[in-house]
Amino acid sequence: MVGGVAAGLSAAARAKRIDPGLDVTVFERTHHCAYTSCGLPYYVGGVITDADRLVMRTPAAMAQAGVRVHTRHEVRDIDLRAGQLTVDDLDSGRERAEPFDRLVVATGARPIVPFAGADAEGVFVLRTVEDAEAIAAWLPVHRPNHGVIIGGGYIALEMAEALISRGVHTTVIEREAQLLSVVDADMAGAIERELAAHGATVLTNTTVLALTGVDPVRGVETDHGTIAGDLVIVAAGVRPETGLADSIGVKLGPHHGAAVDEQMATNLANVWAAGDCCETRHLMLESAYVPLGTTANKQGRIAGANVAGGAERFRGVLGTSALKVCDLEVARTGLSARQATEAGLDAVAETITHVSRAAYYPGGSPMSVRVVAERRSGRLLGAQLVGREGVAKRVDVVAAALHANMDVETFSTLDLSYAPPYAPVWDPLLIAARATAGAA
Amino acid sequence: MVGGVAAGLSAAARAKRIDPGLDVTVFERTHHCAYTSCGLPYYVGGVITDADRLVMRTPAAMAQAGVRVHTRHEVRDIDLRAGQLTVDDLDSGRERAEPFDRLVVATGARPIVPFAGADAEGVFVLRTVEDAEAIAAWLPVHRPNHGVIIGGGYIALEMAEALISRGVHTTVIEREAQLLSVVDADMAGAIERELAAHGATVLTNTTVLALTGVDPVRGVETDHGTIAGDLVIVAAGVRPETGLADSIGVKLGPHHGAAVDEQMATNLANVWAAGDCCETRHLMLESAYVPLGTTANKQGRIAGANVAGGAERFRGVLGTSALKVCDLEVARTGLSARQATEAGLDAVAETITHVSRAAYYPGGSPMSVRVVAERRSGRLLGAQLVGREGVAKRVDVVAAALHANMDVETFSTLDLSYAPPYAPVWDPLLIAARATAGAA
Repeated sequence: MVGGVAAGLSAAARAKRIDPGLDVTVFERTHHCAYTSCGLPYYVGGVITDADRLVMRTPAAMAQAGVRVHTRHEVRDIDLRAGQLTVDDLDSGRERAEPFDRLVVATGARPIVPFAGADAEGVFVLRTVEDAEAIAAWLPVHRPNHGVIIGGGYIALEMAEALISRGVHTTVIEREAQLLSVVDADMAGAIERELAAHGATVLTNTTVLALTGVDPVRGVETDHGTIAGDLVIVAAGVRPETGLADSIGVKLGPHHGAAVDEQMATNLANVWAAGDCCETRHLMLESAYVPLGTTANKQGRIAGANVAGGAERFRGVLGTSALKVCDLEVARTGLSARQATEAGLDAVAETITHVSRAAYYPGGSPMSVRVVAERRSGRLLGAQLVGREGVAKRVDVVAAALHANMDVETFSTLDLSYAPPYAPVWDPLLIAARATAGAA
Repeated sequence: MVGGVAAGLSAAARAKRIDPGLDVTVFERTHHCAYTSCGLPYYVGGVITDADRLVMRTPAAMAQAGVRVHTRHEVRDIDLRAGQLTVDDLDSGRERAEPFDRLVVATGARPIVPFAGADAEGVFVLRTVEDAEAIAAWLPVHRPNHGVIIGGGYIALEMAEALISRGVHTTVIEREAQLLSVVDADMAGAIERELAAHGATVLTNTTVLALTGVDPVRGVETDHGTIAGDLVIVAAGVRPETGLADSIGVKLGPHHGAAVDEQMATNLANVWAAGDCCETRHLMLESAYVPLGTTANKQGRIAGANVAGGAERFRGVLGTSALKVCDLEVARTGLSARQATEAGLDAVAETITHVSRAAYYPGGSPMSVRVVAERRSGRLLGAQLVGREGVAKRVDVVAAALHANMDVETFSTLDLSYAPPYAPVWDPLLIAARATAGAA
């Protein structure tokens, strides 16, 4: 396994479990295998205080399961015909050769840094445990006054929360007209208001042209002026890390990730790929790139099973995800109205706002639900929710319905749970579905 | 509409909305129309302090919508051929005749009281706002030391929470071997432990034979001894209130509720029925009686549409429900293993326990998930969850899958949301489904 985070480690563990006779080795170039990328912002924000908690399985634990894991080892070259890897031991500086007959490429993704100078003092990306530790160590020493976050996706928004909770005045700069491109504009507006309510500034339609200042950074220059900042987090998205795969002839897809079939096999015999370095099979789109932890774990499991002789299939994703932004929960699945339109569908969407509990039960709060469907056919296409409780798992109800190709009118009749502390008698999902069914 | 709570009021409002020319009248024998039965325990427990909050719509509000509502009016007799009701005005003691040409029977259900003497001082049922007000007013005056709750269903358990929160030492007495018959024994065990952890006593396999003491009550006599109690709540279930319907020849079903077709029509022309007085169309059982607020509201809406000339259909329920018992959330949908076996199915079920959030994110707690499937076919049959957060709406994911006849292996591959504050990367639902798929 080339890469030992979510996909690579899942693949290794599964392959070994299915076929204990397999000799399974994992090379991971960072200090840690099996760390949780999704947990990193919470370490920076101080919600998680012990970096060890970010690592789900240590090399020692993997060794007990019969899997050899070498951290700080980078696979530099692959000789497919000879069945040999060239591996750099990053600590000793030595290189060595390793034989293989089956290969899982799980090289992940790398942050997009769309300008020079990102190695300046005070400029960070967040991809590895080391990145998180670096930021967390830097913060109390340098006590920044003003943090600038470049990007408006999951990591950017989680880092905004982290900096806010650290007392850093924060500006989020997004190139597009809205934050979080995977939701529609009204839902993104709720996120923007939440950040503003916590004292952050959100600039949309704003492109960062360059960093200003070197050691330390002094801010960023944009097409709408210069923003002061003594801490800059670059969270402008990621792209698949496919240099190695490409070098041995793995075919890439339209999003520049490794092209894989349902079994996570590449075009090359005995070479599988899984996780953020891959294109993502999407149940509702021709092609997609959805680098999320859930996907990487599932793909890794399947690649591992198939390395061990199985024929398991990855069914595909819906881009289901959830996100916490300060006190706001955000979740989405399937296609947004914009994605549906871009995919050539005639989409209709309605957003309703309803209370999260029975109106008379204390503690409830407003929740907005947007349901997207195809006009005329009424096929359910997706949903987005924002609110202060009960959002993340409500979206999964729609995910299950999407897997089943349900139409929105049928969805509006589902028998969903009701109890005053948890939901109103007509669940907001049903009210939204009814509104969309009426408009479809 | 005979009856003006969930079903009757929903029917009235919908009929008037669809056909504003209809003359719609509702007779309700209690003081309040459109009250929330499900909210009553929370008024007794003090979570809701204003009884007005229990009433969703007043007669005045309904009048504005063009619907006449007469509370404290009991329909005593129906002359179907003449199209005339005999109605008692309970306050004035007068009776009057009311003409009709279409009728919705929404007479609800009445508590089962399986012994004499329930009119003794200190003995209560909980069905109406008046009942809740009576208990809430009685409590501070009589300051009971020991409350006895007879029954182990939703209302019984919610009342146990209410009494516990009022500082009353509480004993719950259930005739069957477990509390909450709609979940399997292991889940019921979690409820029992939760009540015990809050100082309550739970007696199962114990039948109440009689009340002891009259004015005031002194306790209950059971087949396993005498239990002292100066407050007794009888919550031993309900049966459909079908005296009136039966008197005019409405056919009843196996659960003694009004038999209705998908359009909520009875066997009699121009007579519909809806809510707790009806048999319940169940998506997975031949016959069922599921008197829940969600069902009543949905059935009422449909009956109302059809009274106004529509042809809407009630799709059926899965018995999806959620319940709060002290700090425990409980939810279930579809068939329990026991229900499946009783229905002649070869059921397999596994229960797993997993943390509710990412393991490293603070605040998570263990959640148990039980997934039931049919052996060999793998058809998903139901699920039950208990935990301290995120339970009520997780069960709805299974409800959506059941509506779609999903198999458990497909369910185990669903793309569900993940974010450290809300779920682990493999949602407990998926882990449970995988376990059950493996056993099926």
